[in-house]
Amino acid sequence: MTENSAPLQCLAGVRILDLTQFEAGPSCTEALAWLGAEVVKVENPSTGEPGRTSFAGPPGGPDSFYFFEFNANKKSVTVNLKSERGLALVKDMAKKADVMIENMAPGTIERLGLGYEEIRALNPGIIYAQVKGFGEGSPYEKNLAFDMIAQACGGTMSITGEPDGPPIKPGPSLGDTGTGMTMAISILGALYERRATGRGRRLQVAMQDAMLHYIRIAFQAQAASGQAARRNGSRSATAVAPAGIFPCAPGGPNDWVYVFARQPDHWHRLLKVLGREDLIGNPSYDTPKARGERIAEVNEMVTDWTKRRDKHEAMRIIGAAGVPAGAVLDTMELMNEPSFAERGILQTMDHPTGPFKMPSWPVRFDGRPPKLEPAPLLGQHAADVFGEWLGMSACDVETLRKEGVS
Amino acid sequence: MTENSAPLQCLAGVRILDLTQFEAGPSCTEALAWLGAEVVKVENPSTGEPGRTSFAGPPGGPDSFYFFEFNANKKSVTVNLKSERGLALVKDMAKKADVMIENMAPGTIERLGLGYEEIRALNPGIIYAQVKGFGEGSPYEKNLAFDMIAQACGGTMSITGEPDGPPIKPGPSLGDTGTGMTMAISILGALYERRATGRGRRLQVAMQDAMLHYIRIAFQAQAASGQAARRNGSRSATAVAPAGIFPCAPGGPNDWVYVFARQPDHWHRLLKVLGREDLIGNPSYDTPKARGERIAEVNEMVTDWTKRRDKHEAMRIIGAAGVPAGAVLDTMELMNEPSFAERGILQTMDHPTGPFKMPSWPVRFDGRPPKLEPAPLLGQHAADVFGEWLGMSACDVETLRKEGVS
Repeated sequence: MTENSAPLQCLAGVRILDLTQFEAGPSCTEALAWLGAEVVKVENPSTGEPGRTSFAGPPGGPDSFYFFEFNANKKSVTVNLKSERGLALVKDMAKKADVMIENMAPGTIERLGLGYEEIRALNPGIIYAQVKGFGEGSPYEKNLAFDMIAQACGGTMSITGEPDGPPIKPGPSLGDTGTGMTMAISILGALYERRATGRGRRLQVAMQDAMLHYIRIAFQAQAASGQAARRNGSRSATAVAPAGIFPCAPGGPNDWVYVFARQPDHWHRLLKVLGREDLIGNPSYDTPKARGERIAEVNEMVTDWTKRRDKHEAMRIIGAAGVPAGAVLDTMELMNEPSFAERGILQTMDHPTGPFKMPSWPVRFDGRPPKLEPAPLLGQHAADVFGEWLGMSACDVETLRKEGVS
Repeated sequence: MTENSAPLQCLAGVRILDLTQFEAGPSCTEALAWLGAEVVKVENPSTGEPGRTSFAGPPGGPDSFYFFEFNANKKSVTVNLKSERGLALVKDMAKKADVMIENMAPGTIERLGLGYEEIRALNPGIIYAQVKGFGEGSPYEKNLAFDMIAQACGGTMSITGEPDGPPIKPGPSLGDTGTGMTMAISILGALYERRATGRGRRLQVAMQDAMLHYIRIAFQAQAASGQAARRNGSRSATAVAPAGIFPCAPGGPNDWVYVFARQPDHWHRLLKVLGREDLIGNPSYDTPKARGERIAEVNEMVTDWTKRRDKHEAMRIIGAAGVPAGAVLDTMELMNEPSFAERGILQTMDHPTGPFKMPSWPVRFDGRPPKLEPAPLLGQHAADVFGEWLGMSACDVETLRKEGVS
């Protein structure tokens, strides 16, 4: 059996001082950790970052599944930011770091004396990154935000839902992880530049602002129509058929298959699947425009076929015919589909509290995704990191701990 | 007036040979172009990549708004891949490129003789990137896919929608742009590594696989409940109140405000806004668990207040009180909010067919997002790129054009 993953060291030697919590920040540093950066989480000694304990986890374990997912491949040190010694420790680490990142509430990092100007004075080459809910200069720059606030204010909810229903929050936490992705890309750009120039950078992203980037399609729809982009349920924005989900047997909540046959060749292939070769070339059906005038009829034709198959069979047959088609799969079906584990897209974390199977980094490098290493226990790497970064002895580290600094 | 953007050259000198089309590939190279890479689109001489013409654009112009958005800051050359000379030209460019990327239908690039093995033989240090619908080794590896197919098969639709309704496609094109982001991050990691080691990489991502990464939250919900993650409409997954959208005046399709008050301090602040200080400390309401037992009553209390305000006022008042809150904004409201343009989050493309206002890269570098440069006209940079990369004279380039190669 071949290994389904391999250690990845693209960012070997890159030190990331990570003061983020929950998801928008941790999803960014998670991506960098997958690539091999040394990501060191700075957490408060009593409870750790709130993501550790705000959600359910394995019975008897201290940490949540949520924490496992967003903190894989990272290290953890504990530092009491309410003590002078603790703050000095973070500054010492900032001097040794390539990147420092935080996503605290607006104004908090500056009140701690760890703002951009202070840190740049200590380390002019540092890449200093901040993730907030709203941008500096926005009317809401001081407001708190979570994923759903960004999705409300960033337009993603306005374009999700049934045409005649209320806005729906997209299930994926795009406000958090989507934002984290834009910051990861920007940090990597700055790191690449820095290797050549030694230049540091101040990077800032707001979750609301990042959402606009993810709905560029909706802005083009608005540019074309002159009106705010609308909700389209499970359909495509354009009036084409078939383009949407179709019900399958046995009729459970996710027993649907998406079928999209706009191109003429896709439509003709679909007609063969449906046993309606007689309609190939019939001008009443042969163009997207013609079908757009009889959407209900075309959809009924497809439904009549799909409702007599289960979604897997429907996808298999329609997909193999060369028509874009996809079964609506739920998380359990995805988790149990063996090819994801075989290919390393799902990997199992070897955590001290037990194994945990989760999505890995989805990109394969020379055939394999990077290897999943466990999320750290609280403060697990204090001796390691304080030793390597700051030259502290085991005894020094123990003293910090005893004095409540770490 | 200060400039709202600045040219960014983090990836100055990085050459990207871009054979992608539509969105999953172009969104990836768009991110790299924002960072200052030289992204050269290779397009067919007759119509260009299909994204140029598959959607609406400005009247009289050749290109779509869609194309503008996903191809800002790039260059374009035309090459006829059906001619031997054209294929040789691409191979010559691949020898000079740092990155080559494609997202053609499965097997197409290999049939053209431009597969990984051929290109690596020409340029061992190249980073060769591929975006497909389904992963190599997946039961569906040969299937076609678009954004919505990836969203169906990747789980995002299964967790989006009302609890008792059908799956809904998230409005953002996560299957395309979300996937492109993971590839951009991976390319940047490989570029960073290559600067130190000279090592090339083969990178592959599948849109279905990338979706799993974006729904990590749903996998943790499943791990906690033992059941497939469910749809939650506009609410949070956990049974807390208030946590969701609330209707505002005057009752239009997007006249809603999201309010999230789970933490005790947020709940107390919200009670003050609602004029219900009397409930502060009342054990029937004071914990998330207590409110979870009277969700309808709590939501009604909030609704009674929100429905008498418009969403902007509601967000302003609740947000200023220190409670996470966000109005559901549509694309027109976002487009017309002046602070986005002031801050360079929306920028105007100075395109030959007229100005076009669109979302820019949302991350600010030293205070400003990178500057928006227009999407290229078809073949606009042939002389420029063939000259600089391949040493061709203007006359050589003209000959290529006359012979139908470019």
